[in-house]
Formats: sequence, C-alpha cells, structure tokens
Amino acid sequence: MSIEALLGGPLRVANIGLESFARDLAANGAAVAQVDWSPPALPHLDETIDAANREALARILAAEPVLTDVRRAGELIPPLDAEKLLLHAGPPLEWARMCGPMRGAVCGAIVFEGWAGDLAAAEKLAASGAVNFAPNHHFGAVGPMTGITTRSMPLLVVENRKFAGAGNAWAACTINEGLGKVMRFGGNDAEVLARLAWLRDEFGPALGRALRAVKGIPLNPLIARGLTMGDEMHQRNVACSSLLLRILAPRLAASVKALEFIGGNDQFFLNVAMAMGKSILDPARGVAGSTIVTAMARNGTDFGIRVAGQGDTWFTAPVEMPQGLYFPGFSAADANPDMGDSAILEAIGLGAFSMAAAPAVAGFVGAGGFREAVATTRAMGELAAARHPQWQIPALEFAGAPIGIDVRRVVETRIAPAINTGIAHKRAGVGQVGAGVARAPLACFDKALDAFRS
Amino acid sequence: MSIEALLGGPLRVANIGLESFARDLAANGAAVAQVDWSPPALPHLDETIDAANREALARILAAEPVLTDVRRAGELIPPLDAEKLLLHAGPPLEWARMCGPMRGAVCGAIVFEGWAGDLAAAEKLAASGAVNFAPNHHFGAVGPMTGITTRSMPLLVVENRKFAGAGNAWAACTINEGLGKVMRFGGNDAEVLARLAWLRDEFGPALGRALRAVKGIPLNPLIARGLTMGDEMHQRNVACSSLLLRILAPRLAASVKALEFIGGNDQFFLNVAMAMGKSILDPARGVAGSTIVTAMARNGTDFGIRVAGQGDTWFTAPVEMPQGLYFPGFSAADANPDMGDSAILEAIGLGAFSMAAAPAVAGFVGAGGFREAVATTRAMGELAAARHPQWQIPALEFAGAPIGIDVRRVVETRIAPAINTGIAHKRAGVGQVGAGVARAPLACFDKALDAFRS
Repeated sequence: MSIEALLGGPLRVANIGLESFARDLAANGAAVAQVDWSPPALPHLDETIDAANREALARILAAEPVLTDVRRAGELIPPLDAEKLLLHAGPPLEWARMCGPMRGAVCGAIVFEGWAGDLAAAEKLAASGAVNFAPNHHFGAVGPMTGITTRSMPLLVVENRKFAGAGNAWAACTINEGLGKVMRFGGNDAEVLARLAWLRDEFGPALGRALRAVKGIPLNPLIARGLTMGDEMHQRNVACSSLLLRILAPRLAASVKALEFIGGNDQFFLNVAMAMGKSILDPARGVAGSTIVTAMARNGTDFGIRVAGQGDTWFTAPVEMPQGLYFPGFSAADANPDMGDSAILEAIGLGAFSMAAAPAVAGFVGAGGFREAVATTRAMGELAAARHPQWQIPALEFAGAPIGIDVRRVVETRIAPAINTGIAHKRAGVGQVGAGVARAPLACFDKALDAFRS
Repeated sequence: MSIEALLGGPLRVANIGLESFARDLAANGAAVAQVDWSPPALPHLDETIDAANREALARILAAEPVLTDVRRAGELIPPLDAEKLLLHAGPPLEWARMCGPMRGAVCGAIVFEGWAGDLAAAEKLAASGAVNFAPNHHFGAVGPMTGITTRSMPLLVVENRKFAGAGNAWAACTINEGLGKVMRFGGNDAEVLARLAWLRDEFGPALGRALRAVKGIPLNPLIARGLTMGDEMHQRNVACSSLLLRILAPRLAASVKALEFIGGNDQFFLNVAMAMGKSILDPARGVAGSTIVTAMARNGTDFGIRVAGQGDTWFTAPVEMPQGLYFPGFSAADANPDMGDSAILEAIGLGAFSMAAAPAVAGFVGAGGFREAVATTRAMGELAAARHPQWQIPALEFAGAPIGIDVRRVVETRIAPAINTGIAHKRAGVGQVGAGVARAPLACFDKALDAFRS
C-alpha cells in the first residue's frame, strides 16, 4: 500500500502491544483498536512484577534529594580510611582487566594519596594486589568516567530527605574537575594532582561551608528549572551549574577563585546530578519482584545494571563503543569504550532520555537536531514505566521526563537505552576526545530478566 | 475538495505573495510555483525600499553590542543635569495625558531627586510645567514600563562596537529593580526610593567597576546562548541573568549584597537586553527609504513606532490593553494599558518574536503551550525581513530569530506585532498585577507607510 493511498482516507489501526503507539495515533484523530498483548515469557509473573514496580516507582517519584554538604571521602565511607581502598566507576573490575584511562586514573590517585612516589611505582603497587578495588556503587557513591574515589577526596553529599533515617539516606560524588587534563578522563600529571589538592584543601571545605550555610539546596525544583533551560544534566549542565552558582555565590564571596572555578565550568553540576540520581534510586533497591533498573554503570570494560528486585547483583556484558563527534585531531580510532557511573542519569530519565529538553546536546553528541532529540526521548519513553510529575519537558508540551527503566520493556522492544556520554582517549593521560551516544548492551537486560524466571 | 482528496496525491501549489509559505511547502517536498505579487500600493517604490531595507538590515545584523559600563545618567546625558528633565517610556507625552502608574513613577522620581519634599508637592510641581518631560528614546536611552530616568540614576551602558565613533555608539538603560514595589510599575514609596538610593550609591558603582574590570561583556554570544536556554529576553531572562552573574561574580565578590541582588532577580538582564536593542537598531535610523522599524515603545497612553527611513518621527496610535494572566487577587479590571520601551526587544526579534525559544513564557503570559509558542514565532516571522544568523532557536531546528520588522509586511498581512509584557495596576503605587501579550496597533504601521507615499 502506497503512503498516498494510506493517507487517502481516515486511518484505522489495530495496535498490538505497546499502548503508547495507540495513544499517539488516537491523539491524532485515528481510530485505534488496542489489542492487549505482551510477550509470552512471563505470563504468571507479570501481575506480581507490576505491583512491585508500582512500589519501586512510588519510592523513586517520592524522592526529595537535597545537596547538603561536602565531606571528606574517608570520613563518609570509613573503609576508605581503614585500608588501601580505591573506588572506581561501573561494576567490579580487577586491575588486569582495566582499560588505559582507568589505569591512568588509578595510578594518579595512588600518587595523590601518597601510597607511591611516582606513577611507575603506583602501577607496580596496583598490579601487586596491595590495593583493593571496588565499585563506587558498593559504598553509596558514584563517579563520572573513570570515577576514581579515594580517601582524601572531598565528596558532594546529596540526602534524600524523604528517606532520612533509612539505610540509603545519602549518596555522594566527587567534585567535577572541569575540562582539560582531569582524572576522570584518565589524566594523572602534576596539573591534575595539583587541582585535586586544591579541591581537597580549599574548594571542597569552602563549598561545604556554603552548603551548610544555606541549609542545603533542594534539587527537584532545580532539575525542573534546568529542563526548561536546555539541560539534560548529562552532557549539558549549563543552566543548573549557573543556577547553583546564583544560590551559592553570596556564601562563596570570600573566595574569588571558587567563584571563578564554578563559573568557568559548564559541567560543574554533572556530579551533583549523579549523586542525586543514586539518592533517588537507592530506596528502590531490594523491592522484591521489581524489574525497575536502579543503576546502569560502566567501567570501560564491562557494562553493568542493577535491578530493584535483584538487590545488589550486577548483570554485566562487554561495554560498547560510543558513537559520536570527535574534537579536532581525534577520531573513533582514539576512543576508549563507554565508561562511568554517569548512566545513573539515564536511569532517572535525564541525559539521553530527556534529549528533547536539550536539542543543543543532540548536535554536540552527533545525534542530529531538534527532531532527532524529540525522537530519542519518545523512543526512550517506550522503556520507561513512569513520567516524572515535576520534571517537565517544554517541547513535549511539558510532559514529564521518562523515568524508571523497566527491564521487561527493554527485552520486549529490543530498544537499547541510549546514554549521552563523554568519550575518553583509550590511552592514559590524554583526556577527553569527544562526546557521543552509547548504548546499554541488551545482554544485561536479558540476563536480568532471566534472573526473575529462576 | 476534501482534505482526504487533497492529501491523496503529491501536493502541487501555486503560491501568491508571501514567499515564506512557498518555502515551507517546498521544504516539505511539495511542488510549488511562486507567483511574485505585492499589494498595488507602492509599486514604483518597492525596489527602492528593498535596497534601503537591505542596507538597514546589514547595519542591524552587523551590530556588536557590548555591555561596558554603568554611568550616572546626568553624566551620560548632560541635559539631565542642566535642567529639571525627566525621561519616560514611549513616545512624547505631557503630564495631563499620563496614566496612573506613569504619574506615580514621575512623582516618586521627583522626590528621589529632591525637587519636592513629598509626593503631593511632587504632583503639584509636575502639573505646574516646571518639570520637562521627554522620551528616553530622544536621549539614547530606554526604560521598562514607566521607564523613568532622572539625573542621579545609574545607567547600564551598551556600546555597539561595530559603530564605535559614530553618532549612535552607545545606548543606556536603568538597572532592573527586581520584583515587588518598584518604580517601573508606578511604585514610589520609601521602600522604592531606598532601593533606588542603594542602586545609585553602591550597586551601580560596583557593577560599573566589575564591567570595566572584565573589559565589557559581548552580548551577541550571550543572547545566542540564552535562546538555547529558554529565554526570550523580555518576560524571561533567567538564563542570561544567571550567565551574566557567572561572569561578574568574581568581580563583585566584595559585595555579598550585590551578589544576592542579581542572584535574586530573574529579570535582571531585561534592562541590559533593552539597551542592547537600542544599540542594535539606532545605526539603522535615517537609512533613507527603509521601512524597517527602529523602535516600538509605549507610554501607557500612546503606542509609537519609528521607522528607519523616517528618521526620528513617531507614528502613534492609542495603546491597547494586554491580554494575559493576572496574579491572585487581580483581574483585567485592574490593568493599565500597555507600557514601556521594552518592545524594542520584539523589534530585534526577541520577546514574543522568539516565543518558540521560551515555551515556558507562553504559559506565563497566558498564550498556551509549546505549539502556540512555535506558532507565535512563525506568525511574527511573516513580519520580519531577516533571520539572525547567530541567534538560533533550537525548537525551530536552529533557525534564526525573526529580526527587522518591515512596515510593509505588517500593513500587507494585517498581523499586529505581538509583545510579551508585564501588566501594571492602573493606579499609582500598586505595582505589577500580571503578564500577557500586547499588540502593536496597526494604525501606527499604516501611518508610517503613508509617510513613504507622500
């Protein structure tokens, strides 16, 4: 049937399965018969799962994340002080399997903590087994790209006030270092370590005082405002970084350098948003029977997801290469595979899931223009179990951000969750070479759903 | 022909007149025959006008506005020191015809300058003829709402560096007072005058020092960024106010109150944008034969426009009532007619002309949602002779803001330029009661076009 013939009369459609297709058609005046259908895999389980997902989503949507403080990592996470422990992005990973920039960051952090005198000695130490490695996610933290967290680093603290007093009352993330040579992209030279020292000795404590002075900054309204200002909080944080500075500037007035540091970094808010993401999803961990994703994270080697009803189990698969645009002088041949805990943002409906709010990002990551940005959010909406009631996207007539990835929807649609990401050079010490869109491997979701069958 | 039949085959269209309709159709794959046609009124003139408009637009699009300084009004505009002169928004207006909030602001300013001891004495003085009134526009300035400018007020200075050394090298505007009781909405009590004194004595000089220290802030890139962040720079300046603060905060660190003042005012940037608007359009004043609008301004009684080819002549008509939404406790019965020099923003393609960049504003002014915001920009695009090459609107696939109102297009289409505006209470001293959309009276444009015939 030609498209002309199809459009020659009013549409009459029988839609099988995904209801949202029918809703879209109906909204455009077509006559739609909805045929309820779902894949035959889990017929006896689906009702239980639906109820569990409602509970998980209720917890997620009830979150009241507040940026409250900056604290020394070792103080917040005592094992960091008790042993030579180094936290990294993504699921668990031993030294032997670490990619180039991850190793670079590890060695830099070892020198930064004084466990070795130089990078060569640090590498020997790391390979010797004398340093313990663990995911940030195992200790209430997240980190962008390599995501290295060690004891003396200052961590942003986000409290989920709805669940104050519960076990998962806070989440933490390092402070964004800015652009150029930075540890999150595998940088480890003197410039990188000097900046980390300044963050540790001056900026972190000053930011902590400022946050305590304003009694914390509620993040739900800030995200809601940011979505009306072109941010998706993963590859674009211009608005939220600026709004945060507006609130804090009077309390940071004693440090011109602190004002310049925040003012000079469009991505300053990224790490706040990441800690917020974990603080929102953690209360859903352990909701028995729920197929809602509570974490997506990559370590440059493996991609891992956690699912509410499967507690702290990681479902992993080899990580993929991001598709994107490269800075002048670099190409895909230079790129490291996908990396970082920042995919927590897509798990709360931001990043690529809210691309329609940030069409400028679509261009930045090589994903087209406004139309493609809207299409990305619509596609990701097929995977999400809810729409956030406060985080609204103007270009979708203020529909809510698609939040709560249902493993079943990913398995059913075979749509891989998209993730807006920075791209690191595959060698240690080079840094960021581009930005693009990565995909969560479908195998992670297939494995997770299998776990509900067993 | 039914719509179904029309859509049953490929479109073939003969388009007469407005070319943009043909362009839209062609972009969607339709075969279009464009028939050149324009109304018969000015056949022998149109070629001359086209050439003149090209020159006017070239000047407008070449503008390089830079926010450079804050200076005392009397120093910048010597007649303010030489006589009891008070500048107001809109076209010329004598005391007898002034609306309530304009009179309220005038009396407050007279007390502020010490020309009378209280408001009653100020009113007597104003009515006696001992105070001279003139439009801001006659002295290189603009002002929002009542737009009162007097000698001791600090003025933001925007220089158009492309035309440095020319007669119209700068434009100026008062500093935005924030919300609540403010002179621009007719406020005149002790709170209003105390804030003006602080702006004069502390904030203005501090801001001037900060601007000189950073050697000025180029505004084209700031506007370009703001349009990707939900601002239309008339009723929404959240992004540009925040971005401005980011740049200035390190230089204002000595004054916590200054940081709080800017940080607490989403509309702080409005007055910067207005001065910028005048600095962009002034170089087009006097381009012989050009029908491009160089100013739209309202004084609460009359609406006036100026046109490039008609020099400093005002073409006026009675001002209309804005249509909009009212704050709790107020209604259209409380509203003052349309007021302020801020319509200069629509004359440079911002405000309602860029509504598609700021769908949140559409809701704020009662003009619908995203779809209506896009429709407003498309409609205003019919009146504009150019698209700004740098100021791009993401939701229109990064098409440029529609800039340069051609009087001929307004007369031909009978589409009245829309203006996003605050709404003042009709009585002095009450303040803002809502926000809405006002229309420029078509009579102003009819009169202006008639002037080209004579």
